[in-house]
Amino acid sequence: MFIGLLIGRFQPLHLGHIEAIKFALRQLSTLIIVVGSAQISYELRNPFTAGERITMIRNTLIHIDEIDVRNILIIPVPDTNIHALWTHNLDLLVPSYDVIFTNDPFTIALFQERQKKIVQPLLFERQKFSGTRIRENMVKKENWKDLVHFETAKVIEEINGIERLNLLWKRYNEQH
Amino acid sequence: MFIGLLIGRFQPLHLGHIEAIKFALRQLSTLIIVVGSAQISYELRNPFTAGERITMIRNTLIHIDEIDVRNILIIPVPDTNIHALWTHNLDLLVPSYDVIFTNDPFTIALFQERQKKIVQPLLFERQKFSGTRIRENMVKKENWKDLVHFETAKVIEEINGIERLNLLWKRYNEQH
Amino acid sequence: MFIGLLIGRFQPLHLGHIEAIKFALRQLSTLIIVVGSAQISYELRNPFTAGERITMIRNTLIHIDEIDVRNILIIPVPDTNIHALWTHNLDLLVPSYDVIFTNDPFTIALFQERQKKIVQPLLFERQKFSGTRIRENMVKKENWKDLVHFETAKVIEEINGIERLNLLWKRYNEQH
Amino acid sequence: MFIGLLIGRFQPLHLGHIEAIKFALRQLSTLIIVVGSAQISYELRNPFTAGERITMIRNTLIHIDEIDVRNILIIPVPDTNIHALWTHNLDLLVPSYDVIFTNDPFTIALFQERQKKIVQPLLFERQKFSGTRIRENMVKKENWKDLVHFETAKVIEEINGIERLNLLWKRYNEQH
Amino acid sequence: MFIGLLIGRFQPLHLGHIEAIKFALRQLSTLIIVVGSAQISYELRNPFTAGERITMIRNTLIHIDEIDVRNILIIPVPDTNIHALWTHNLDLLVPSYDVIFTNDPFTIALFQERQKKIVQPLLFERQKFSGTRIRENMVKKENWKDLVHFETAKVIEEINGIERLNLLWKRYNEQH
Amino acid sequence: MFIGLLIGRFQPLHLGHIEAIKFALRQLSTLIIVVGSAQISYELRNPFTAGERITMIRNTLIHIDEIDVRNILIIPVPDTNIHALWTHNLDLLVPSYDVIFTNDPFTIALFQERQKKIVQPLLFERQKFSGTRIRENMVKKENWKDLVHFETAKVIEEINGIERLNLLWKRYNEQH
Repeated sequence: MFIGLLIGRFQPLHLGHIEAIKFALRQLSTLIIVVGSAQISYELRNPFTAGERITMIRNTLIHIDEIDVRNILIIPVPDTNIHALWTHNLDLLVPSYDVIFTNDPFTIALFQERQKKIVQPLLFERQKFSGTRIRENMVKKENWKDLVHFETAKVIEEINGIERLNLLWKRYNEQH
Repeated sequence: MFIGLLIGRFQPLHLGHIEAIKFALRQLSTLIIVVGSAQISYELRNPFTAGERITMIRNTLIHIDEIDVRNILIIPVPDTNIHALWTHNLDLLVPSYDVIFTNDPFTIALFQERQKKIVQPLLFERQKFSGTRIRENMVKKENWKDLVHFETAKVIEEINGIERLNLLWKRYNEQH
Repeated sequence: MFIGLLIGRFQPLHLGHIEAIKFALRQLSTLIIVVGSAQISYELRNPFTAGERITMIRNTLIHIDEIDVRNILIIPVPDTNIHALWTHNLDLLVPSYDVIFTNDPFTIALFQERQKKIVQPLLFERQKFSGTRIRENMVKKENWKDLVHFETAKVIEEINGIERLNLLWKRYNEQH
Repeated sequence: MFIGLLIGRFQPLHLGHIEAIKFALRQLSTLIIVVGSAQISYELRNPFTAGERITMIRNTLIHIDEIDVRNILIIPVPDTNIHALWTHNLDLLVPSYDVIFTNDPFTIALFQERQKKIVQPLLFERQKFSGTRIRENMVKKENWKDLVHFETAKVIEEINGIERLNLLWKRYNEQH
Repeated sequence: MFIGLLIGRFQPLHLGHIEAIKFALRQLSTLIIVVGSAQISYELRNPFTAGERITMIRNTLIHIDEIDVRNILIIPVPDTNIHALWTHNLDLLVPSYDVIFTNDPFTIALFQERQKKIVQPLLFERQKFSGTRIRENMVKKENWKDLVHFETAKVIEEINGIERLNLLWKRYNEQH
Repeated sequence: MFIGLLIGRFQPLHLGHIEAIKFALRQLSTLIIVVGSAQISYELRNPFTAGERITMIRNTLIHIDEIDVRNILIIPVPDTNIHALWTHNLDLLVPSYDVIFTNDPFTIALFQERQKKIVQPLLFERQKFSGTRIRENMVKKENWKDLVHFETAKVIEEINGIERLNLLWKRYNEQH
């Protein structure tokens, strides 16, 4: 009966994330999906709001047979001004947990200093399934829909996500 | 197929809240429970962290037969420094919704200025089921367990909630 | 050719303020009206937004013959978390000035430590013309319109100010 | 009888801005000039304080015959930590308005999601009249005075603006 | 060879604090005096800046024979917006330590949850030596100089501390 | 009997800093070492916490014969969101002082506008003794120990500083 955290920014949720979620769920009674950098949106690296990302996660997972959403909590967690306080602030916002699933070296370092148990999920075809690449493909009008779940793509289209990303891209280039 | 918000501080979750949750769920396909003032804890009026309050809500609702937790999201939402921005910040943190269930006059006012649909759930024995009263009873060592669900009481005891509240009470009195 | 600051919260603008504005203008080529606590609104002591207060000031002054609005700037200035930095932050937000018109002892103290020139305008029937009293009268449905300019009253009614104040009053009492 | 916003950073005010102000004023009874990123100064891209920028705008406009400053408000507006809240925070700081004059794609996007009316003023010789270019010319000791109004140049010299910019340039290069 | 923290607000430093400092020093090789609520000043409960409080502490301790200031560090530590993060933020600002000397129930609670070692110094005539009482005496023009060290009184007089406190008292009463 | 500030980030303390400290101490009765950007750590340019940097400074200076630590205060000072307020915030956190020792052009500019006395210490072999270079050497596994004091190196090793820097370097490259 273990409780685990899986931490990501989910900009957007992609098939690599879904594999990691399945991997984590097989070892846990409850999985808490932490939607990181929750306060950021409308930026090139972080186009979607936490609410939109939660919608992607929920609408997608509910359509995947082997996942039982009763065992899942989805919690948005903002960054802290003082980086080194991040894991402590996280602890105030989520139920207590036994293990953290993450591949981010910084998160790993901060938790290791606190003697927390960390599992690094195998990255599923990382080159292919990465948020950065998917956002690039969206801007370059290349294939992105095969890299995300059908239900995730539906959410992105309903919120005019591609249009928003193009705008952020345009603005970024004007400023740099 | 409606989505609704139910907003509360849940300091702690009590039987009145549970009636409101059932009431809201009967009219909705998805209920988003907003845990307000999420950044505050270890204060006399706000003793429990958002993570502890989410634990109370989840552990309790999962034991109530007529509630299907697959239809529920639990989202912590912090206060904003600028009060009048609160509902706009909320909109960034939750999926889009059709209706708000709340009895707080301030929240009602802010949403009404934005022409949002509001439902005021009937307050179930309000005198009896109020967070303020339950916290008072906890400090005065009067009956509080009958006012909350058994699973909620269990969480409060596991985190030594009564002890914490007494300490906050002691400190409050030293400063006032 | 002097430039002066007149600092107030203007919750709401009243006839006492208008006398002080006329008094200051007679000694200055330019008057900067500082709308203090600009970030606060929807509170019992601070019901109106900075934008609403600027609207009151502008719409009113433009109808007063002896005031030439070309000589007036209206600048909203937020509080600072660190109180003692307030006057320094103010200096970043307004044109440079020669004198400050204020009766607030704290503002006087902070400016005096910096050797700034301060003028305390005679308070025009202070008991009668005070923001606190006007807000109280608004809640108690007593006479408040005679204490403010006709154009100010018009703005307050257009934004449903009395209704908002009653709501804030109701909420305040529920929490205290 | 329309009220409009014209949004800019005015680092510094230049002749292109002045054309846009005239363009907007011809269609409005009141123009609110929003001095954006008001809290930032002493940075390479944002050398001048909001107070200095307001001084530039006011001292300049008062000397332009076809502009009646009685129809103009100049309001400093800070950035918000949460970008997506920017337009909502703006609404708290300015009188209510009918139309927004802006060419910034991000501002356009945020307002369009709120169904606000936007006008993009024709950019008057944009290559020539751009804040970035003027600041570069200031650092490189190339011609910048022809790109701003005489009264603006006077303010910049009174505050030793060129010296400050050189210093910020020096510091920027040490850090990058 | 132990390092210890002694936490206080020192508004102002009084003879009770000095006894606690001596008590702690006898058990330690290094004492870190934490000046809490470092960001607050010019408030009735917190009249003095962190810099002023550090001056009081340093100027006083250097004149006490049995104290060797080489073994003392004085570190200002601000409050955190999120109370429950306070001890974690403290840990980022001070050298690592073995024990905490404090009598504040809240600080004790937060540290106990982290299994830190706490010593409660005997309160030396607490009724008499309390910051609250000393500030009250200052306002009421009653005896306060006997409750603080001669060097502390000197600092308070050099910064016109009594005058400032009277002003803050006046302002507090106007607002309440 | 002069009091002076020496301002640095000390990421980490190196032999160039120590020369500057000795230089300043020869002209002062009290030296206040300001540990700047105190709130930042776990970043590539700012790997160490303020507490760790204070430990480096204290442990090192206490072993240098010609330095009397009784004449030294070490005060952490955070950055301010509003850059131009930095020197004013500093003034609230340190005892009052007569002179500032710094080579940072920005700090010099801000203090000069306030007519403060500034001394630029001769930079001791600047190419060699620079924080940037030392951090680079740490990552590239090149010689860094000769650039810092033995006691500073000891602190860095005790906190696994090199490991942390490598991690931050890895993360930086993943994001850029």
